[in-house]
Amino acid sequence: MNKKTGKRSFRLASPVRIVSSGSFVGEKEGQGPLGKKFDTICRDDTLGLDSWEQAESRMLESAVRLALSKIEKEPKDADIFMGGDLLNQIISAGFAARELRIPFIGLYGACSTIAEGLITASMLIDGGFAELAVCGASSHFSSVERQFRYPLEMGTLASPTSQRTVTGAGALALVPYGVSFNKEVFSHAAVTGGTIGLVMDYGITDAANMGAAMAPAAASTICANLDENGIEPDCYDAIFTGDLGSFGTEMLYELCRARGYDIEKVHTDCGMLMFSEEQNAVCGASGCGCAATVLSSHILPELDSGRYRRILFLATGALQSAVSSLQGESIPGIAHAAVIERMGEK
Amino acid sequence: MNKKTGKRSFRLASPVRIVSSGSFVGEKEGQGPLGKKFDTICRDDTLGLDSWEQAESRMLESAVRLALSKIEKEPKDADIFMGGDLLNQIISAGFAARELRIPFIGLYGACSTIAEGLITASMLIDGGFAELAVCGASSHFSSVERQFRYPLEMGTLASPTSQRTVTGAGALALVPYGVSFNKEVFSHAAVTGGTIGLVMDYGITDAANMGAAMAPAAASTICANLDENGIEPDCYDAIFTGDLGSFGTEMLYELCRARGYDIEKVHTDCGMLMFSEEQNAVCGASGCGCAATVLSSHILPELDSGRYRRILFLATGALQSAVSSLQGESIPGIAHAAVIERMGEK
Repeated sequence: MNKKTGKRSFRLASPVRIVSSGSFVGEKEGQGPLGKKFDTICRDDTLGLDSWEQAESRMLESAVRLALSKIEKEPKDADIFMGGDLLNQIISAGFAARELRIPFIGLYGACSTIAEGLITASMLIDGGFAELAVCGASSHFSSVERQFRYPLEMGTLASPTSQRTVTGAGALALVPYGVSFNKEVFSHAAVTGGTIGLVMDYGITDAANMGAAMAPAAASTICANLDENGIEPDCYDAIFTGDLGSFGTEMLYELCRARGYDIEKVHTDCGMLMFSEEQNAVCGASGCGCAATVLSSHILPELDSGRYRRILFLATGALQSAVSSLQGESIPGIAHAAVIERMGEK
Repeated sequence: MNKKTGKRSFRLASPVRIVSSGSFVGEKEGQGPLGKKFDTICRDDTLGLDSWEQAESRMLESAVRLALSKIEKEPKDADIFMGGDLLNQIISAGFAARELRIPFIGLYGACSTIAEGLITASMLIDGGFAELAVCGASSHFSSVERQFRYPLEMGTLASPTSQRTVTGAGALALVPYGVSFNKEVFSHAAVTGGTIGLVMDYGITDAANMGAAMAPAAASTICANLDENGIEPDCYDAIFTGDLGSFGTEMLYELCRARGYDIEKVHTDCGMLMFSEEQNAVCGASGCGCAATVLSSHILPELDSGRYRRILFLATGALQSAVSSLQGESIPGIAHAAVIERMGEK
């Protein structure tokens, strides 16, 4: 059965339920507007381990364990873990998978990873290849700064278009429609379709302006989703993007308007929800952990409780490396989208 | 319909045809025993571009274009490109996807990437999410040496357990069973099942001994495939691993024997096919490009022509980064496996 509704979009034969989530964030994220919603907030961003990298991996592992434990499951009960992060060779996810011992499909989609994992895991469940899948993504302010930008010890000033990388990890537990558990975090949330990302490059070379690098990919995916399904933005109660920040969001509106879609009324960027203005994150939050934790602990609870009937959830990634930037390459972006609906019955 | 045959193994409802392949290798690989089989051999490993990284990305892009052109298709005809490589943030695959403009699912499985892509793309086709999918992977001796080991200019001597990273890229075109084209490279090759990798770590810390780091993962995946399907090694005409090299291969035999399976008679390692002894690659070849090009240009033609009826194809990856090694972490490995069968009719 062909489940494609267009070149890049698909509709699942049966909804895939999101039954649980887990989130783990750093202290600054815990002090932000969504602070009370996260499952775990750490005071020490090393978690007492030897490095930020180890701490990030532990956060992702913990988020997965937490999502499973809430439905009284353990890692050994899960069929597939689809995850990734921003670190070279996705070591956070790789080492987390080593500890979890769940069959592992490693993903790299930069900050789009949670959406990439969510739609791919949903397709695999819909195809009959998993009964319980987990997807997750993480980032860590300190590990990312030293990998992509400058050593923290230099105290480099933030550029006016910069965003602050979230220290945090989010994970979701997915099951086929019809499967339920005694204890569930979400009774109504389900993935029903999605749109696969296309790599877009508008020639941005400023690694301190990720929002601009990713906005064209977000616009492309939103417009493809609307075009291919023959719908208007207001078919969604909300369209969320991962971490475009304030600058990228303005660019997204312009690009969508040029394609005939006004999304401003229904759009919210996770990167602008994470920190308050007083927290001085400049253009907002970024990082794989931003969209992953905001989806896990803010968006899904709101959808489950009835605030939204149908949303489009996108996460956007910038596909550059420190080497490609030094070699003068521009920064391509990608955005994957999941259609998440509130189902009346399980 | 549940297609799982065990915790990690699955059987597709319908076989997924591998209709075409493309390969692009460096000069040394072209001079090896398989040299005449590869589609394109470059003399200059920069391809005249500004960096090895750009050259690697171009090789992957070219391999994908080649695989599609052989079936008279273009990138715009493909629904999904699943690819990855060894470079930080998989820039080879990301930049290739930018040029190809095929909806992109970025993978990271280190040298296991071609098998990870092959089974994941097959599951997505079987699930009804793609009519024409491409998977591909690449590596480049020079870009990898400087990223993971030492600058080439230092002339560091090879350790006795080291393997030489393949400069090359391989890509495969996949379609649902029943779909055929006027021109096809392979008329009989099809993926029928697979086994998803589990991250294994035996505490190896020597980045010059990848074979030993990956052998436990290969053994785990082979034994899981045999256990979960209730079969013996001789059910396969051949079991291929990606790039364990001679040292890793010996370790694999020991580990399988300890689990009650003697695979020596049916096993071949792609890493030991790429270079002749005179080419001085020490323990053999490695890199994402090794398994990808050997599968594309050697194994699949042999299976298609009738030499094999059923094979198990594994690629193995080492999930470390330069940072994790410096931080004293051991090197976890992962291995994904695809069951590839020769089908009598299309």
